[in-house]
Amino acid sequence: MIRTHYSTQITPEMDGSSVTICGWAHEIRDLGGITFLIVRDREGLAQVTLFKKTIDKNVLDIVRGLSRESVVAVTGQVKKEAKAPNGYELVPMSVTVLGKAESPLPMDTTGKVDADLDTRLDVRFMDMRRPGTKAIFRIRHLVLKSVREFLDREGFIEIITPKIVATATEGGTALFPMTYFEREAFLNQSPQLFKQLMMSGGFDRVFEIGPIFRAEEHDTRKHLNEAISIDTEASFLDHEDVMVILENLIVYVYSNVAERGTEYLKTLGMELKIPDLPFKRITYDEAVDIVRDSGEQIEWGDDLTTESEHTIGKTIGEHYFIVDWPTKIKPFYALPYENKPEICRAFDLMHPRMELSSGAQRVHSYELLRSRIEEQGLYADGFDFYLKAFRYGMPPHSGWGLGLERLIMTMLGIENIREVVLFPRDRRRLSP
Amino acid sequence: MIRTHYSTQITPEMDGSSVTICGWAHEIRDLGGITFLIVRDREGLAQVTLFKKTIDKNVLDIVRGLSRESVVAVTGQVKKEAKAPNGYELVPMSVTVLGKAESPLPMDTTGKVDADLDTRLDVRFMDMRRPGTKAIFRIRHLVLKSVREFLDREGFIEIITPKIVATATEGGTALFPMTYFEREAFLNQSPQLFKQLMMSGGFDRVFEIGPIFRAEEHDTRKHLNEAISIDTEASFLDHEDVMVILENLIVYVYSNVAERGTEYLKTLGMELKIPDLPFKRITYDEAVDIVRDSGEQIEWGDDLTTESEHTIGKTIGEHYFIVDWPTKIKPFYALPYENKPEICRAFDLMHPRMELSSGAQRVHSYELLRSRIEEQGLYADGFDFYLKAFRYGMPPHSGWGLGLERLIMTMLGIENIREVVLFPRDRRRLSP
Repeated sequence: MIRTHYSTQITPEMDGSSVTICGWAHEIRDLGGITFLIVRDREGLAQVTLFKKTIDKNVLDIVRGLSRESVVAVTGQVKKEAKAPNGYELVPMSVTVLGKAESPLPMDTTGKVDADLDTRLDVRFMDMRRPGTKAIFRIRHLVLKSVREFLDREGFIEIITPKIVATATEGGTALFPMTYFEREAFLNQSPQLFKQLMMSGGFDRVFEIGPIFRAEEHDTRKHLNEAISIDTEASFLDHEDVMVILENLIVYVYSNVAERGTEYLKTLGMELKIPDLPFKRITYDEAVDIVRDSGEQIEWGDDLTTESEHTIGKTIGEHYFIVDWPTKIKPFYALPYENKPEICRAFDLMHPRMELSSGAQRVHSYELLRSRIEEQGLYADGFDFYLKAFRYGMPPHSGWGLGLERLIMTMLGIENIREVVLFPRDRRRLSP
Repeated sequence: MIRTHYSTQITPEMDGSSVTICGWAHEIRDLGGITFLIVRDREGLAQVTLFKKTIDKNVLDIVRGLSRESVVAVTGQVKKEAKAPNGYELVPMSVTVLGKAESPLPMDTTGKVDADLDTRLDVRFMDMRRPGTKAIFRIRHLVLKSVREFLDREGFIEIITPKIVATATEGGTALFPMTYFEREAFLNQSPQLFKQLMMSGGFDRVFEIGPIFRAEEHDTRKHLNEAISIDTEASFLDHEDVMVILENLIVYVYSNVAERGTEYLKTLGMELKIPDLPFKRITYDEAVDIVRDSGEQIEWGDDLTTESEHTIGKTIGEHYFIVDWPTKIKPFYALPYENKPEICRAFDLMHPRMELSSGAQRVHSYELLRSRIEEQGLYADGFDFYLKAFRYGMPPHSGWGLGLERLIMTMLGIENIREVVLFPRDRRRLSP
């Protein structure tokens, strides 16, 4: 190992000791008698100070010849220096160039010059060096970790289900077709059917965090063709039970990011407001009323448009659930109320800006499920592998799917979903 | 929530209290004056005892009419009973059928009748109810959790990279082609190129746990067409540094499974031997010698056959690394030794039964990388998005990919890789 310390692990108290740091030549300032090299590593910045009078000439020549963003290893002595980042500077014994950077750079990484998102995504490896981009993906790691912590403690078992499938999950959504050896197959749009199979299998509570694929043509700031879905399914719970799990998860994630991600939030210039529990619940009917009150047209049974979502979001102003949806606009597996089958035990979790999650208590009767599939114009025999699991002891169960990217972008107040994905895939972008 | 307790959360000390359990009718024994219903939930078994003299006739009728593997909720009083599982029985006030099972069942779940793997995989939702299958996937959860714990503590950041890509990663391996809107694309066979981009981006240490797709035709007990790869990449470390991380990870996972998975290991009838650190290292040349000593033919520069791997595995008898591989049989990104470029800084981590992981220090010089790509007969311009990242400050870096399924099957002494995947995908199987 070349490095002995990250820049932020060195303290003024280490004055006199010898260390090696590794990182990028962030800035080089040559003032004649004194030359400063600012080295940037993952955790922060370190100032390397070369005094012309005392420095080894070879070392000075290396630093003077350094191009910005080259990778270096610096071995030097720690010197307490109140004016430098972290309160110390390094007086180098040696500077080694490990990876030379060509000039000009394909993108400015100091934040002084604004680049548009497309340019940034084209050279994402440069964009990642910007503090803001780095902060987003440090937070993304924290979010993933917090979600797993929470679900593990709640007794959920992590599962991984296939992404190559023979059957479309829900109909409706466009799928990416592919050839699986000599057969037709698809990229899975949701682990829905598989996580329900786990309920028949007695796994009781499961979750999956994995890619979903949707071949939808729309090109908006909140859709991706490859996204990450956080999916759960739980037996012997109804939709209200899993809504409580979901709202608690959201608050747990926000709290964790606020607590463990302080530094990254600061980089992004934001303070995180942790949502209050419980989230407000409104019915679909109440949602329709709010939309109509605002003067927009909506028929009972219509899905909410983006515009309607914004209207309701502005009225409520915080996270909320919409419950009791019309059965006909929800997937076949949402359970209709027995006494009022035109509405169902489905819910959407909404952020004022957009939908984050959809869930429901599921149909667990084989007969009802089969007829619901047919009512939605799908071919029931194509779901044989799934329907079978409902004939030999299927418990009542409920679950939801939560979009990871939307969770992060709404949490951080980010406008474009592509900002929170390392290498996004959309209608036009397939590279890098 | 219907359930108040899992079967194993009820103790004899709760004698007299009222509880509700939910699960599957595992067994029904009617002895005339007394009827036993054994209810199975995720955590274990509970005995429900119906005394004919005192029981509500409706409750008795429900239990007598129950088909095996139907789902029930039982509310009853806890009664201390040394002879019952967990030292208690339930005297039911009510039994509700939540999901009726048809007869005959598509598969025996008691373990009394052996079913072949294909049948089990066809009705995986039934197979999951068997204690052995359930134990494997409980352990799989523990493995995933332990891997993330270990890597997080070692400073690795979790990343997720795209599964739909425009370029083949390594050449050689067969890819699944697909159509991405109007363009040709592939399912990614490895996150290799992306995790290297993260090194240029300054993320220093990253990991990904996700699906990889290989359209290989072979149909063996250790290959899948969709598998899960645990991938890491780290800057300023050489291959020997990341071998140490890898062997420590393996031992951490084994230790955790031994400690937290005792019950599941017991179900599988096994004791877990934790490998000793450090793992043995042999060079490729030494591996060739062992193979030749056993009388097998091998030319220097040949890859090891399965037979050769077994020969070496038997000789060494525990986990081991093979280092210093011929450059020509490793991918273009493996770094050749400067003073002996015919061998490279690549390693394989082997279990005596099979290869678990491959890794290397990577080429980080743009010029060398470009010529290595061309030497391997690949079209360098197709790698432009990747090569670019080496021109603007790429640190030296190393990493490895570890097969999750192989880790689990070798740990648990399981013969067929399909046993450790919920819904495997192979040459013939695309469903469920």
